[in-house]
Amino acid sequence: MLKIYGDILSGNCYKIKLLTSLLSLEHEWIAVNILAGETKNAEFLAKNPNGKIPLLELENGECLSESNAILNYLAEGTDLLPSQVFEHAKVLQWQFFEQYSHEPYIAVARFINKYLGMPQDRKEEYHQLQSGGHKALKVMEAQLKQTPFLVGKNLTIADISLYGYTHVADEGGFDLSGYPAIQAWLQRIQEHPKYIGMN
Amino acid sequence: MLKIYGDILSGNCYKIKLLTSLLSLEHEWIAVNILAGETKNAEFLAKNPNGKIPLLELENGECLSESNAILNYLAEGTDLLPSQVFEHAKVLQWQFFEQYSHEPYIAVARFINKYLGMPQDRKEEYHQLQSGGHKALKVMEAQLKQTPFLVGKNLTIADISLYGYTHVADEGGFDLSGYPAIQAWLQRIQEHPKYIGMN
Repeated sequence: MLKIYGDILSGNCYKIKLLTSLLSLEHEWIAVNILAGETKNAEFLAKNPNGKIPLLELENGECLSESNAILNYLAEGTDLLPSQVFEHAKVLQWQFFEQYSHEPYIAVARFINKYLGMPQDRKEEYHQLQSGGHKALKVMEAQLKQTPFLVGKNLTIADISLYGYTHVADEGGFDLSGYPAIQAWLQRIQEHPKYIGMN
Repeated sequence: MLKIYGDILSGNCYKIKLLTSLLSLEHEWIAVNILAGETKNAEFLAKNPNGKIPLLELENGECLSESNAILNYLAEGTDLLPSQVFEHAKVLQWQFFEQYSHEPYIAVARFINKYLGMPQDRKEEYHQLQSGGHKALKVMEAQLKQTPFLVGKNLTIADISLYGYTHVADEGGFDLSGYPAIQAWLQRIQEHPKYIGMN
């Protein structure tokens, strides 16, 4: 059976959990505690030398890291990953956008606030992350004013990737009330009959 | 004809230039000056609301951003992109690694040093970026001790993605002399008969 190493409160890990639910994929979920150093011990580093979760382990022992690479692997051949080359590239465009222009602001601000409890020495960083997060939200809002999902008419893994941290952006101090198209999109995803929440 | 908007001294743009050479892809290269604000004017933002290069524009006017998404699109169906699903996912794993764990350290340190001329107010940031960059280089070194290219025996776009900033890492203060497997890999790429350099 597929093994997935993750922490359900991490948006990057939750993306994978959400996909397994939408696709009814059988798997074993192995809880890993980042703050307790469980991604940095020798056993875990042998599976992922970069010391990060989520991590997918196949039945043959081969491992795959990076949340968005895992989504692409698991969604291959399903409706959640377009087979047409340009559309697939648009999915990737949004996933790379997520990792470079969205996650480093929204997820990190949330981590400082929710996981670390807003320590004094990271307050300035927390405030500095706000403008980059809003810039990313504006790019998403502009697209979602034009199309119901990020790559067009249909739900894809691009939406799952961006949903991961956007739906908990308030925990990083981001008020979504100024983004009506994003709010409608969040609702659209939550209405999927196989949707599961983070908790 | 394909149009590519870029700055050849940006590693993210050079990746695309290198791929077009390896695949002998005809294209029009449109030079864009980031420091002069040319990615932030209305005309450019209509093509990429995230205001970044490289950007690919197809003959039908459709646009694709994010260097690694562009590489996937252009390399589809060629030897540089494995068709086997798990191997393709490994290519993506390395490309997401590049954008999250490599570029934000090595490319940003290089930008501060080479583009901005190491201004006093970014010196501390420059020094702080060094440990993250070396962490990424160690992950690459570990893989390249085992296989000649990042995803195995053959050159793929994962190598092109990581080559972009690794081969100019010294301009960000990263001494590669402690990474013999990376040095041999750089050489292996440079020996490709259709290789072109950054300048």
